[in-house]
Formats: sequence, structure tokens, C-alpha cells
Amino acid sequence: MTQSREIRLRTRPVGTPTAANFEVATTEVGAPGAGEVLVRNRFMSVDPYMRGRMYDRASYVPPFQIGEVLQGGAIGEVVESNAEGFAPGDLVSSFFGWREALVAPAAALEKLPRQANVPDQAFLGVLGMPGLTAYAGLLEIGQPREGETVFVSGGAGAVGSVVAQVAKIKGCTVVATAGTDAKCDWLRSRGVDHAINYRNGDLLGQVRAAAPKGIDVYFDNVGGEHLEVAIEVARPFARFAECGMISSYNDTEPSVGPRNIIQVVGKSLRIRGFIVSEFASLRPQFLTDMMGWIADGRVAWEETIHDGVDTAPEAFIGLFSGGNTGKMLVRL
Amino acid sequence: MTQSREIRLRTRPVGTPTAANFEVATTEVGAPGAGEVLVRNRFMSVDPYMRGRMYDRASYVPPFQIGEVLQGGAIGEVVESNAEGFAPGDLVSSFFGWREALVAPAAALEKLPRQANVPDQAFLGVLGMPGLTAYAGLLEIGQPREGETVFVSGGAGAVGSVVAQVAKIKGCTVVATAGTDAKCDWLRSRGVDHAINYRNGDLLGQVRAAAPKGIDVYFDNVGGEHLEVAIEVARPFARFAECGMISSYNDTEPSVGPRNIIQVVGKSLRIRGFIVSEFASLRPQFLTDMMGWIADGRVAWEETIHDGVDTAPEAFIGLFSGGNTGKMLVRL
Repeated sequence: MTQSREIRLRTRPVGTPTAANFEVATTEVGAPGAGEVLVRNRFMSVDPYMRGRMYDRASYVPPFQIGEVLQGGAIGEVVESNAEGFAPGDLVSSFFGWREALVAPAAALEKLPRQANVPDQAFLGVLGMPGLTAYAGLLEIGQPREGETVFVSGGAGAVGSVVAQVAKIKGCTVVATAGTDAKCDWLRSRGVDHAINYRNGDLLGQVRAAAPKGIDVYFDNVGGEHLEVAIEVARPFARFAECGMISSYNDTEPSVGPRNIIQVVGKSLRIRGFIVSEFASLRPQFLTDMMGWIADGRVAWEETIHDGVDTAPEAFIGLFSGGNTGKMLVRL
Repeated sequence: MTQSREIRLRTRPVGTPTAANFEVATTEVGAPGAGEVLVRNRFMSVDPYMRGRMYDRASYVPPFQIGEVLQGGAIGEVVESNAEGFAPGDLVSSFFGWREALVAPAAALEKLPRQANVPDQAFLGVLGMPGLTAYAGLLEIGQPREGETVFVSGGAGAVGSVVAQVAKIKGCTVVATAGTDAKCDWLRSRGVDHAINYRNGDLLGQVRAAAPKGIDVYFDNVGGEHLEVAIEVARPFARFAECGMISSYNDTEPSVGPRNIIQVVGKSLRIRGFIVSEFASLRPQFLTDMMGWIADGRVAWEETIHDGVDTAPEAFIGLFSGGNTGKMLVRL
């Protein structure tokens, strides 16, 4: 038997999650049965969308259950295989994060190619779900054309940082927001034309100054005031890729909606929400493009790593105060 | 010389327009010069979008100017022609409404075919700009499929009433709102499945009861609470055709935005504002389809007619309190 520590949902968060909403438990993982594989996780992902699954409500994924282990993306190594195509030492990804070890049917695992120039955990970030989210949302919904202006909020996050760099690759002027000067410096080092620290206030004024002719594409990770500002500075026919609204995830009262929503009509704006699963078919093209851009040095990334499964709750909670630059990960 | 009374913008409205914002003036219209045509208007249109042009701000059409004659759709008869292709008695449409007579270059006029089964003024309504707005917004943006549920606000208005009937033609379940029981009765007589009087309160409850499985398409003429309700009951991947937000046109304070805007992400909603001019190329197909549906009795319409150019301001103001069933017109 293999011992595995895991994180369970102890209580549903009200407002911003706290450590008390989670508990660590130790379980025993048995030997893999026929067609199964024993995996020891090496990295697990914490992502803002997981907050939504902590509410008890119907959504595009079912809610987490009290007392049960949480779920999320993870990568690990095969320890023991009872399934064709998997051998000890193989790198695999699964949706069985928030735990140290697991036994799963082969169909629930994906074997990953080890890349010479990228660490394995990139498959949880720039080469994984956040990377595909950025790629698909920007290119399929945003449809940026050379010379246009792309505005991205949460620009130093796992998704936003890829959006910003891919927009530069596509020949756009890029305006990105982040919550610290250090994050803004990183964005500028990646070629972002205008990096704005939204904590300095007057977001509308700062964005207007950066994009005096307006924006053509808005990639939204933040919602709230950022969305209202984007509507205000949008040019006619601007495209909004609504990926997330982290500023509202912990709201206990209804949010204030964008007060200038009426401009959607007069400016013929196109506002489109999406979940990355809609674009799963783009994954092969995404991986080809992204590996090429990484090899060329045109896409780089940052990681913020916590150590030990017991630190997963604090890593997750840190997402809501901007505790991460780039991808937030837990090393197991 | 021909005498012509016309309506000028006297002052910019603050909040709901009043009669004091307008003035009647008499001008003299000369004989048509080379390439010009003298037209006596028979009907002029008043439309909600004109309120936007009364603000002094940049938009998709320039603002009306104080002291100058207003503009808008009109149909009239050629009185005297100095241009090839136009003869006295011809029916023409122009953008020179809010006046009794005009001289214009031939290029600014469109000769209309007189139809046996429709009155001339239908070219300002079901066969004109409002009809094309409904047709293009519903079919191109809403993309309704047979068996889906279409929700339309302002369902008894010039645009909404066409949306509701075309959605029925396309095999959809239709939920429409209007502001009087008489308007709701008319909608039911046209085959609308669920006609809701929004003045009865609990709009969300009424719409939920009418569409317990949610809506696939929302055609918005109203904005405000209607938009918030539509987001709340939208099914995943629902399409929103944002045609207008009449509930906010007279706001003197910023509107309250939809407080549930975050659902745009989780439900992958597609919200798209539009101006009918974007779809001008659909006009031939629209006219063919609409004339066919009228001939088949599948599309009918109501008109609310005021008499005399001096009544145009009150006709226009009446739009904001639901004073019209169907197309609001002024007979000249």
C-alpha cells in the first residue's frame, strides 16, 4: 500500500477562502488493478476556476463535495502499471490533483512527452490548460489582426501572460494590467507595450493613456472595473474574450455589473464567454505552435511554487490576492 | 416655392424628452436643381435610436445639432423631378424625415415599389429599417434553430413584433414581453407562446415559468432588468442580439449593469451588439422573405399613427412610455 496525503473540502468558503475551509487527510492507495496505473504526483495545479466548484450550485462542472478530496490538474510519474502503454517512470497528466498518489484507469491518464527545453510542470501551465485557454480565447474569439490593440487583464497570470505574448507574436500593440510593479516589469521584459499596475488607481485613465485610440480586443481574466473600463475604451466591433472574472469569485453580494453596458449596442461589441473545453480540438495545433514559440524564445513564463500538498490551500487562496507571478503550482 | 413645416431640436433633452425640447418652424423649399427631386413626405418614422443622437457625443451617427431640423426615415411622393429615373407620383424613401417637403439629390432617394398587399408606410416598418433590424439580428446573430426558445423584449414594438413572428416561422418557442395586456393579447394572436406583461412585476419569475428549461436566444430591445433576467435564464451557449436598451436611453445617472454578468463566462454566452447598417447586404433577401411571409399571412403588424408634423415630438416621446403598438408613425 502507498500512503497519500490529500486535501479535502471541509466547509464551503463564504467570501475569500481560508485555511479553515480545507483539511489534510491521509489515505492508502492500493495496487493497480487490471487496466489501472499507480501514479505519484509531482506537481498539482491550483486555478481560479476551482473557486466556482466550491459553491453548491449547478455549473459546467459539478460542485466539490464536503468531506471529499478536491480535484484538479496534476502531473506525476507512473510507479506501477497494470495497463498497456504505461510503464514506470512515464510522465502522465491527470485530473487527480490535490493528492500525492493515485490509482486510476489508463483512460483517465494522458502520457506526456518529456521536452528537452521545458520542465515537466509546463504541462500544467504554458503547455497545458492555461496555455490552451489563452491561445484559443485570444485567437479564436479575439481574432486579433496585425496592428490592432489587445488589452489583457491579469496579464502576469498563467493565462494572461500567454495572451500578452501571443498577441505580440501576432503583431499587436499590447496593454496589460497586473497588481505589482515587479509583475509590470516582467511584462515589459516580454515586450508588452504598456504594463499597468491597476493598484495605482484611475484604471480608466491609465488605459486611456496607453491606448488613446481604443482597444480592438479585450481578454478578460478579472471582470469588475476592468470589464467596465474595457467597454469604455473599446472601438467599434471590438471582441471580448471572457475567460474569467476573478475579482468577483469571492463576492458575497451580487456584483456591480458594467454600468456602461449600453455601449455594447452602439459600438457593436462582441462579448463571448468561454470554457477551454470548447476548444479541445485545437490542442494539437496549440502544442505545435507553443513549442515552437518557446524554442524561439518568443514565449517565456514564470512559476510560483509552493512545496508540499499541505501548502495547496494557501497556494490556492493566494491566487485571489495576486500571490503568483505566472503559474501557481504545488510541488509534491 | 413650397412651404414646409419641420421639427427642429430646440434644446437637448435631460432625461425623458419633453415637448419643450422641440420647435416647429416653417421653411420654403425651392424648385429642384439639376439632378434633384422635390418630394412631399407622406409618413415619417420616429424611432428609439434617435434619442441617442440628441446627446452631444460621438457615436455611430453624428449628434443632432441645436436649432437644426431633425433627421430620420420618411416616405413621400415625388412632386417635381429634375433627375433621371424619378417622375411625379413616384414613391420614394429618404432619410429626410421630420419635415413636410424637401429637395434632395436623386442619390439620396430610393424609389420604392408600390405593393398591392401592403400600405406604403410599411417601408418604414415591417419592410423597412425595423424589419431588417429584426430579421438580421435574429437570424444572423441569434441563429435560432428549430425547437429552441427565443426570448424577445419589447415584443409588441416595431422590431420586437417582427422578431417574435420570424422566430415562430423558424419553429421556435417564443417568449415575448410587452407593457400592456392588450399588447400581450396581440402577441398571442400572432402565435407567440408566452406573452408576458412586464408591468405585472417579478419579471424573472414570469420568464422562468414561461421557459423552465431556459432560453437559447435573447433579442434585446430593452436592456436593464430584462437583460439581467435573460442572462439568468440563458442556457449554455445562448446568443444575445443586443439591438437596443430603451429602458436606459433617458438615464441621467449611469445605469445599473447586469449584476450577474459573471454568468457570461460559465455559460459561454455570446452577447453581440449591432446596428442594422452592418447587415445592409441582406436587404434583398430580407425583402423577398418578408414579402412572402406577409403574403402568406405569417407576418402581420400594427401601426400607431399620429397626424401632422407638429405631432412628431409627442409621437417620439411616446416611444419611451410604450405609447405605440407596433410601428410608431407620423402621417404628414
